[in-house]
This record gives sequence, C-alpha cells and structure tokens, in this order.
Amino acid sequence: MRGLVLAAGLGSRFKSEKPKVLHEILGKPMLWYVINNLRNGGVTEIGVVVSHKAEEVKKAFEHEGLRFFYQKNPKGGTADAVLAAKDFFASYEGYLVVLNGDSPLVSGETIKNMLNYVTMVERYEGKRVSALVLSAYLPDPTGYGRIIREEGSDRVLKIVEEKDATPEERAVSEVNAGAYVFWAPHLLEALFQIKPSPVTGELYLTDAVNYMAEKGYEVRLFRAKEPSEALGVNTRWELAVAESLIKLKLVRFWAERGVTFHLPETVWLEPEVSFEPDAEVFPGAVLKGKTKVKKGARIGEGALLVDATVEEGARVEPYSVVERSVVKKGAVVGPFARVRDGSTVGEGAHVGNFVEVKKSSVGPGVRAKHLAYIGDATLGKGVNVGAGVVFANYDGRQKHPTTVGDYAFIGSNALLVAPLKLGRYAFVAGGSVVTKDLPDYAFAIARPPLEVKEGLARKFLDIKEDES
Amino acid sequence: MRGLVLAAGLGSRFKSEKPKVLHEILGKPMLWYVINNLRNGGVTEIGVVVSHKAEEVKKAFEHEGLRFFYQKNPKGGTADAVLAAKDFFASYEGYLVVLNGDSPLVSGETIKNMLNYVTMVERYEGKRVSALVLSAYLPDPTGYGRIIREEGSDRVLKIVEEKDATPEERAVSEVNAGAYVFWAPHLLEALFQIKPSPVTGELYLTDAVNYMAEKGYEVRLFRAKEPSEALGVNTRWELAVAESLIKLKLVRFWAERGVTFHLPETVWLEPEVSFEPDAEVFPGAVLKGKTKVKKGARIGEGALLVDATVEEGARVEPYSVVERSVVKKGAVVGPFARVRDGSTVGEGAHVGNFVEVKKSSVGPGVRAKHLAYIGDATLGKGVNVGAGVVFANYDGRQKHPTTVGDYAFIGSNALLVAPLKLGRYAFVAGGSVVTKDLPDYAFAIARPPLEVKEGLARKFLDIKEDES
Amino acid sequence: MRGLVLAAGLGSRFKSEKPKVLHEILGKPMLWYVINNLRNGGVTEIGVVVSHKAEEVKKAFEHEGLRFFYQKNPKGGTADAVLAAKDFFASYEGYLVVLNGDSPLVSGETIKNMLNYVTMVERYEGKRVSALVLSAYLPDPTGYGRIIREEGSDRVLKIVEEKDATPEERAVSEVNAGAYVFWAPHLLEALFQIKPSPVTGELYLTDAVNYMAEKGYEVRLFRAKEPSEALGVNTRWELAVAESLIKLKLVRFWAERGVTFHLPETVWLEPEVSFEPDAEVFPGAVLKGKTKVKKGARIGEGALLVDATVEEGARVEPYSVVERSVVKKGAVVGPFARVRDGSTVGEGAHVGNFVEVKKSSVGPGVRAKHLAYIGDATLGKGVNVGAGVVFANYDGRQKHPTTVGDYAFIGSNALLVAPLKLGRYAFVAGGSVVTKDLPDYAFAIARPPLEVKEGLARKFLDIKEDES
Repeated sequence: MRGLVLAAGLGSRFKSEKPKVLHEILGKPMLWYVINNLRNGGVTEIGVVVSHKAEEVKKAFEHEGLRFFYQKNPKGGTADAVLAAKDFFASYEGYLVVLNGDSPLVSGETIKNMLNYVTMVERYEGKRVSALVLSAYLPDPTGYGRIIREEGSDRVLKIVEEKDATPEERAVSEVNAGAYVFWAPHLLEALFQIKPSPVTGELYLTDAVNYMAEKGYEVRLFRAKEPSEALGVNTRWELAVAESLIKLKLVRFWAERGVTFHLPETVWLEPEVSFEPDAEVFPGAVLKGKTKVKKGARIGEGALLVDATVEEGARVEPYSVVERSVVKKGAVVGPFARVRDGSTVGEGAHVGNFVEVKKSSVGPGVRAKHLAYIGDATLGKGVNVGAGVVFANYDGRQKHPTTVGDYAFIGSNALLVAPLKLGRYAFVAGGSVVTKDLPDYAFAIARPPLEVKEGLARKFLDIKEDES
Repeated sequence: MRGLVLAAGLGSRFKSEKPKVLHEILGKPMLWYVINNLRNGGVTEIGVVVSHKAEEVKKAFEHEGLRFFYQKNPKGGTADAVLAAKDFFASYEGYLVVLNGDSPLVSGETIKNMLNYVTMVERYEGKRVSALVLSAYLPDPTGYGRIIREEGSDRVLKIVEEKDATPEERAVSEVNAGAYVFWAPHLLEALFQIKPSPVTGELYLTDAVNYMAEKGYEVRLFRAKEPSEALGVNTRWELAVAESLIKLKLVRFWAERGVTFHLPETVWLEPEVSFEPDAEVFPGAVLKGKTKVKKGARIGEGALLVDATVEEGARVEPYSVVERSVVKKGAVVGPFARVRDGSTVGEGAHVGNFVEVKKSSVGPGVRAKHLAYIGDATLGKGVNVGAGVVFANYDGRQKHPTTVGDYAFIGSNALLVAPLKLGRYAFVAGGSVVTKDLPDYAFAIARPPLEVKEGLARKFLDIKEDES
Repeated sequence: MRGLVLAAGLGSRFKSEKPKVLHEILGKPMLWYVINNLRNGGVTEIGVVVSHKAEEVKKAFEHEGLRFFYQKNPKGGTADAVLAAKDFFASYEGYLVVLNGDSPLVSGETIKNMLNYVTMVERYEGKRVSALVLSAYLPDPTGYGRIIREEGSDRVLKIVEEKDATPEERAVSEVNAGAYVFWAPHLLEALFQIKPSPVTGELYLTDAVNYMAEKGYEVRLFRAKEPSEALGVNTRWELAVAESLIKLKLVRFWAERGVTFHLPETVWLEPEVSFEPDAEVFPGAVLKGKTKVKKGARIGEGALLVDATVEEGARVEPYSVVERSVVKKGAVVGPFARVRDGSTVGEGAHVGNFVEVKKSSVGPGVRAKHLAYIGDATLGKGVNVGAGVVFANYDGRQKHPTTVGDYAFIGSNALLVAPLKLGRYAFVAGGSVVTKDLPDYAFAIARPPLEVKEGLARKFLDIKEDES
C-alpha cells in the first residue's frame, strides 16, 4: 500500500526559520507522526512531497526509507504537490493514501479503517471507490471546507471551500479533514483535468475530488472517529493543542495497561517511553526519549527523565533529573538529584538532595544523601558519601577517574582528587583532601590544628546590647 | 442510618496486584472517599462487602469501625454481593444506602439529599419508597444502564442494561449512577426473587430494582447534582479523571473560603490539608497529608509539603520540600530547600537554596541561605550559617547532635563534627573543621598556611596563545 | 473618550483583608486589566469609583493618571457608584464607557468595537445611542441579569434581574455582561430619575438602562466576542478561572507570533513578558514581570524567570530560577541553578546544578557547573569554578567583593575569602582557603599534610563478617 504526504507548505504562520513539519510534538518532528500513523495504518511505501527547505526535511528523515519528491512552487497548491509526485503513482494500479504533513492527528487506526472501507466496497458492492474523503463534524466548522453529501448516503457530491460556499453550504458542519484514499489511476486522470484557481493560481486537490464526483466516479466519505483528527496544524497554537491531544492519548494508552498517572494534563510523555504495570507517575513529571519505567517504580512530581531506565520498585523523587542513566531496583534518587551521562545508581542505593552523579557507577546500597558531586567514579557497594564531598575529576586540563572500594566511608566536605583509588573500608575523615591512593581499611586525615581564641569573636561580630 | 459498600470487584481492568478500591486518589484509597461521603451523608453504620484480596482491604480500614462481609464469588454480581451482607440488614426496618466501592464521586450532599427525599415522600405522600435510584444525564450515555421512567414523573419503570436495550431505550440519556437507597425489607424480598443472568450467571442489583418496579413498589429516581457523580472508576484513566475532579472540588471549596489558587489544574491538594484565609498557592504546588497553611502564608511554584505547617505570613519558595516540619511565622524556605523529619524553621528565619535541614530546630532569625546541610542540630536565634557548611552528624556508626548558641557565626565551608556545642556569639572561620566545643564569644580557626608560587600556574593550565 | 470603573464593592465573598480589585491576576491587580483594556479600547480619561479601603486602591494606582471618586456607601448600588462620579461626566457631551472593576475579561477590542458601534449608528442611522449594553449568550445563565430584546433587532426592551424574572424571562440565555457605553447626558438624566430598590435599598444601573428604554431612548445591545467576557470575578474561584483564561490568551497571542509553548495550561505567563520568534517554552515554566526571551532561547521545564533577559540561543534548563538578571547569548543556566539580583551570565557560559550566582558578573565561557556559591563577584572570561567552591562574601558584619581574572582555575571546595582579587590564569588548588590576592599565573595551595594510618578504619567502621 502506498501513501503520499504533502509536506511542501511554507508554514508561514509558524513564523519560523525551521520548516513547519520539523517542528516538534513531544520531542519528534510533526512529520514523524504522519509517517508513523501511515505505517500503523498498513502503508508500506511512503512518498513525501517537499519544497520549502527541502534538504532539511530530507536530512531529518534520511534513514526512514522514504521517497522524496520536489514541488517547484511551494505555493502551487495541494494538487500541484500531488502532481510533483506523479512518478510515485503514475503506473500504480492501487489505492493511494494522501495526507497533509501537518495532520498528525489522523490516526493509524483511521487510515486502516479507510483502506478497509474501500476494500469492502470493492468486495461487497462491486464498485471501485475513486476517492474516499475523511470527514469530521465540528461544532464550529469555520475555516474548513464543507462536505456536501448526497442525502442519506455516504456519497460526496462536492467539497466546497468556505469562501465559495453559499449560506446553506456554510451551515453544514461536516468538514473535509484533508485525508484521502484515492484510486491512483482516477486521481491521475483528475489531476490532469483540473484548472488552477483563477483567484490564487493554485491547483486544489479538492477540485480533483469534485471532478471525480461530477464525472460520476464513486466518491465517498468516511467519518473520523474523533473530530480532533481533522485538526490541521497551521500555527504554533494549534501545535500546542495537537501536542496536548497526542499526549493525552499516550497517557490513556498506558493508563489502560496498568500505569497510574496523577493529573495527566500536567505530565509530559513522549511516544517511545514505555512502562510496566503498576508504575506510577506523579504530577508534572517529564518522561522523554526511550525512558523505561518498570514494575512498581515511582516517578515523583516534576521528575525529568531522558532515556532513563528506572527499575522495579525504584523511586525517582520530586524534581530530580535522570539522563541516559539507570536507576536499579529499589534505589532512590532525589529529591533534587541529578544523575547523568551513562551513570548507574545501584540496587537499593540512595542518591539524595543536591547530589550530582556524572558518568559514574554507584554501587548497591551506596548512600550519598546530601550535597555532593560524584564524577567519573566507580563506587563499590555500601559506600557512604558524606555531605559536601566532591570528586575532583578535572585538573584544568583533563578528567581523571576515581575508584572507591566497598563500604568505604568518605567524611563530609572531603575532597577526593582524581586519579585516585580508595580501598575497601577506607575511611576519609571529614574535611580532608585526599591526593593519594588508600589501601583497604586505611584511615586518612588531613586537618590543620584548630586554634580557639576565647573572646576574640567580639572583634568580628556586633554584639547586641541586650544580648552581651 | 446504614450504608453498604460493594467493594468485592476484581478490578481486572486496573491490571494491578493491588485491590482496585485501595488504589489512591489524592493520597487516600478510593474506598476512603466512599466511606467518607457516606458519613457526610449521615450514614453512621457502614458495611463493606469484600472478596478479592479481602484481607488487604480489611487491614487498610481496620480502625474505621466498619463491618466487613465476604462475598465468596467476586464474579457473583452486584446482587450477590448485597446478599453476602444480608446479616447487615435482614432484621433492619429502615433505609439502606448502597454504593459501589468504585464510585468516589457520589457526594455526601447527594446521599443526604436522597435520604431526605425518601423521608419527605414518607411524610408528605404517605408512601414508603422501596428503591430510590441515583440518575444522571450524560451527553454520551454509552456503556451505562438506562433509566426508563414513567412519563412526567420521578417513577422508575425499569433500568435496562445497554446490551439489552432497544434502540429507543438506548437513545435515553438518563443513566443509572449505581447508587441507591432501599427500604431494607423490600430489598431483601427482591433479592430472594431474582434469578441469575442466563448469560453471565451473575445476580444483578438492577434486577432487584426492576422486580420492585414490576411488583408496584414505589421506585423513584433522584437526579445527581452533577453528572460526574455517575462516574464509576473501572480503569486507571477513570481513576485519573476522578482524581482531577475531586481535587478541583477541594480547590474550589477552599477558594470560596478565602484561599487564592493560581492555575488550580496544576495544583495537588489532598483532602486533609487545611488553610486559613488569604493563604496563597502558586502553580504546581503539591500539598499532602495534614498540611496546614495559615493566614497569608504563600506556597510557591512546585513547592511540595507533606504534613507540614506553614505559619502566618511564612513563605515556602518555589521547588522546596517541607516534610513533617514547621515553618514559623514570617520565615522563608527556599527556593530549592528541603526541610524534613520534624524540623522547625524559626520565626523570620531564612533557609535558602540547596540547604537541607533534617531533624533540626533552627532558631528565629537564623540565616542559612546557601548550600548547607544542617542535621540533628539545635540552632539558637540569629545564627548565621555560611555557604557550604556541613553539620557532620554521622561518624560511620551513629548520629550525634550539635548545638549552636544564639548569634553564632559559622563561616563558609566550615565542617562541624558532632557531637558538638558552640556557645553564643561563637565565630568559626571559613573552611575550619571544628571538633571540639567552643565557649561563648570564642573565635575558632583551623587553616593551613597559604602557599603562593608565582608563575607556577603555567605548569597546570594551557595558556592560550593570544592571551598569554 | 472617557471611561468609568466601578471599583467600590466590598468583595466580601473574597474573604480577604485586601480590596477585591487589588487581588492579582498574573502578577497584576485585577483593576490593572480593566484600566489596560479601557486604554486599549481607546479610552483616554479614566475615572475610578472607590469606597472600601479607598486609600489602598488609590495608592496602588497613584501613578496611572486616573481620577478617583469616592462612594460613601459601598452598598449603595451600581447607580449610586456612578452618581458618586457625576463630576466626571456631568458636563460631558460624549460617550462614557462604564465597566465593573471585577470584569477583567471585557477586552480592549470589545470596548473599541462598542465605541465604533455607537459612532456608526450616529453616522448611518442618524440616531444617538443612549445606552449600549454588552451581552453574552451563556449555556447556563443562572445568576445573571437577562436581556429582553425587541424581537429580531438589537434593541433592548429591558434588563431583568434573575430574582425578578418570569419563567419565560429566566429561560433567556442572553445575559448582561455588565459593560456599557452611555451617552453621558442621558445617563445623568436617568440616574436622577430612578429609585432605590425597595428590597435592598440599592440604586441599580440596570434601572437607569430600563428607564431609558421605557422612555424610548435608543438602548441597544452588543454581543461579546467571547462569552467569557461576561465573567465577573466575585470569588477566588472565579479569580482563578479568569487568570487561566487571560493567561491562555497571552500564550495564544505569542504562539501566533512565532513562540513555541508546550502544554500551555501548565505555563505561567505575565502580561509584560515579551518574546522573539522561535523562543521555546517548556511545561511548567513560569515567566514573570518584564522578562524578555530572545530568538531561539529555550526556557526549560519549571524554570522560573522574574524580570530576566534570556538572550539569543541561551538556555535556562529545568527548575532554574533567574531573577532580575541577564543570561547572555548561548549561555546555559541549570538545571537547578539560581541566578539573582542583577547578575549576568556571560556568552556561552555554563552555570550548572546547585549553583547560586548573586549580584555577580560571570564572564563569557565561564564554567561553574556544580554546587557553588558565587556572590558579589566579577569573573573574567573562561574562568573555571570547581564543585563546592564558595565565594565567602560576608564576614559577619558586611559584604565584600571578589574579582577573578580571565582563565583562572578555582579548584573544588576552595574558599575565596573576600575582599579578594585573583589574577589572570591564577590557579587555586582544590580545598584551599584563599585569603590574599593572587597575581596573574600564580599557583596557590593551602593544604594540611595527609596522614594515612593503615588498618585504623577498623576502629571507626563496623566491618561486616562476610566482608572482612
């Protein structure tokens, strides 16, 4: 099955330097959704008509197995865009799905149902459907083309653009959603018959549909499951609306598979995120990329995950960021923690508030609960990292690694100057700067003597009258 | 007044290991709301029919003064569930409210009004209402049982399940909300008369209602105040919807009592949180447990409070977490601060960004404005805690306390090794490690000599050509 | 053109110590919106009737060029309020716009259109409109006054308060939005003719309208563009609803000018914030005051900006706070950073997690990526600030400045005791306390010797049987 996506539009209402179809919805270009929906609808060969900033669009989708066609005049109109791709279907005796690149909400299910419909009509009515037009009922159809149907049937008499509509036609609330299935030979015939609009000079695809209807070809309509499928994304406001709608569908998909979401409107969820049952997602959480949340794991308020894996029963506490890292079973990260760049937080470990873990492996049961920086390090199991500890991995020229053995204790405000290797059960006294390796069970301390001068604070502090 | 809650369902669409009625809405099990609403509606004796994972449900509500009944077959149907509790009402000459355990939105007010209704009918019409059925008009009634009423009256002719409905019946948009008041003796009679469904083998409570209607007993309907009361929670999507609705009701309740909320859809509010007038809650704030927010206090964006008390005029700044702690009058916490485990932030004190306060009492007027860990400590009034200060309360084996006298000054990056006692107006120089007690007015410093080697930095840093 | 705002109401349903019209919507008093809308509608001279806590209201708007009028009895009714300002229009031969101070949603466009309407009627129909009443159709008109119009025309027969309405009148869903344009001489005449309500003793402005209609003066209605314009803010719930609506309008305004917003419902946006195209705002971001976001800048999830400037291509990462500061081109702030009090983050600089910058200038290319406090400092270009570094700017009595030369390297956990001046390429070894100025290229270290005692850790740590 073949499908053609019209992605040549200028998108001038986006007021952007980026082509419209590359603007992102939930972290993916808008066009990604259209292609994905076509594939889910059973379309295997996909052509894309580009024009405006064609190279950018082609580059963004270069590994997707698409065929690109170039429309010389991006203002040539929708039928001109289809004609630009005529090599794609000129010798094709089959059905061609045609979608707009800014219609990310026409679902795979709808496409599949439209294709089923034409097959069924062929089989049971013995008729070939020349054009099947996706329609939707909108409470406010302003701005959309209206579908004038034969009374009491699914047959389309014509599609009328709003500006050309009579008052009666304008009162029709069934609109053209801009998605079609065409019998390719009839489409080709129609495209060569229609004339440019005398007003705009554009060739309209709806004129091709109207040509077929007038000629007595079978033109039918197919009602969209949800009116929102008709939403074309022409402004960034509509982009935001589409994004919210697609996100709620994703949330609902997962909620029905055993994931608990709290205040779903506030949650961000990208299409390649996956879950196991009894995962729980709290308000304002942000799940991006290929994040995986396993059984019973909890993603706290405002936690932000990018390509993260959160294993069974682990908890990412509120306002924590986990990027390209793994939080193992039963571990706790946060609140206010950041784990990034290929790090691992081991089973049952606890990385607490104001702690950053970068390119590090934190062993099982490690406790680093407050204000610390752990970078380029490997920590064994049960290590205790005190508050204010810094793994000094950078010497002004390059980064160096640190290794810490099992059950080592690193006192608060200690500084570990990499490269460094601490043995098992090594003990670093608080405030010490460690610049050489420590064997197992070694105790290390670097501390100047404490001088106490009685009464001298009076020199440095204003003593309040009533307090002195 | 007696009420019976049917909480035996398997909730298989939840795909959970936890019984459906224990899934939480705003931090409380769904069943808590049903019981709470019954009590608010004037029901004093409550029975609960359990089956699936009965022990878990009973345990979660063991101190609530409920009577539990066990339904052998959780697929026996709603009438079978009621029969399982027949000891609860077999000898009861009175009205019995029957609710589903997954109907947390049937409000206490509605229950009270239903009970008033039957009383009024008894008093003024001299009739006993055998069954009063809660109904709601839904724009899309798909999936619900339809109520067929006697034209122009409140009398119910029958309740028809959707699958058994004729096209005319299906067009009815008045549905059965699944909440009833029964005259107990008639309910009992009906339950013994009805037969299991030939299709599913289940005994339906609606058949009991229909039995009564057919027999000429008085069966009435009562319109729900809000259609949302009819929402049964069968999936986690519906759970999220119910949660959002209940939360907005809570927000509205408090907004009408003088609390300002900003972007209420983004705010999380649990049912036992309480406020005084002129409190103000900003977007994304999360208020849990028995949190109390007093007059004029402000809860900033994304601030998260658990069992916290925020006193008059105090401010919890954005992205701060306060757990089981008290923020006294006029104090400021955050942004990015965490106060936890029974801590107190004194009047007018300021705990600032990246500061954690754990099991500590911070005196009035204390300033700990940046990057610090204060744990197991008692700070007098007016103490200044510098940036990077750590109260080292853990020695690898156990926790120790620290006490700091009024107006003491603790310089930045200082480390206070507990157990420790600093006197009033004690002054700790920045970077010092303090390991022994300091008397009042003492000045303490522990600092190695600073060696400066001119030009030596060239050895460690790459000097840029154009810069050297 | 003149406009009069009735802002004398007690607002008792707000249950507040603050006058209702000073309650804030998106950081501005409600009354600010009404005045702003009048100005945008072309009204140049504005009078405000105050009563309850008049001085507070006058003070809040003292520099706005308004004329204030005092209503003695705040319960005197709307017409009494207008009469209190009769000096404002007694000798004015022109149109007077009259709005309620709690109607922030009547837009400037609507006011302009109402004024155009009366001008056009004068010009083309040769009639003077005595009163033009803003109307709206509400699905649920409960609580609003109904407009009874002459059939098939825009002429108002009367406005009926709900409590006085007949059942037929109550069925009307066209309501009085409470905004008017009056021909001043006719208004004055009417105000002197009407009588106080026998029930409440109040003088109603709608009675003045009805007087005109009865007398045969031209009374017309003007339909609001959006029904929400009729929303009067009488409770804090309605305040929250109005705030959300105004915010979404602001988002839409900017989205249509080339700004991308994600999940707009969760974003906070104040009316004086401005953007350049291709700026991007992520969920939960909070933009306050006169914040400016330039071309291609990104404001991450939950980032909070107050009077901030974020220059071209700069990024404020999630959960960062920037207050009264500038983030220069291409700089990155956060996640979890705080920049405040007139600070500047230089071009391409990176201020990272758990870093606070206060009253400081951070040069281009500076890297301060983890856990640091930079206060009262000036950093040259390319400076490296290690994790745990603190600029100790406060000595217990006063604040002192620090200057750091280009490309200096400040090792982790170092403490810089101000006042201090570090030269270019100065190198401070990790953990050092620096108390004196360093020349260019100097290397500075302050570090006690590290003592390592083999095996001694056994004394301090519990060695686990299976591990020793």
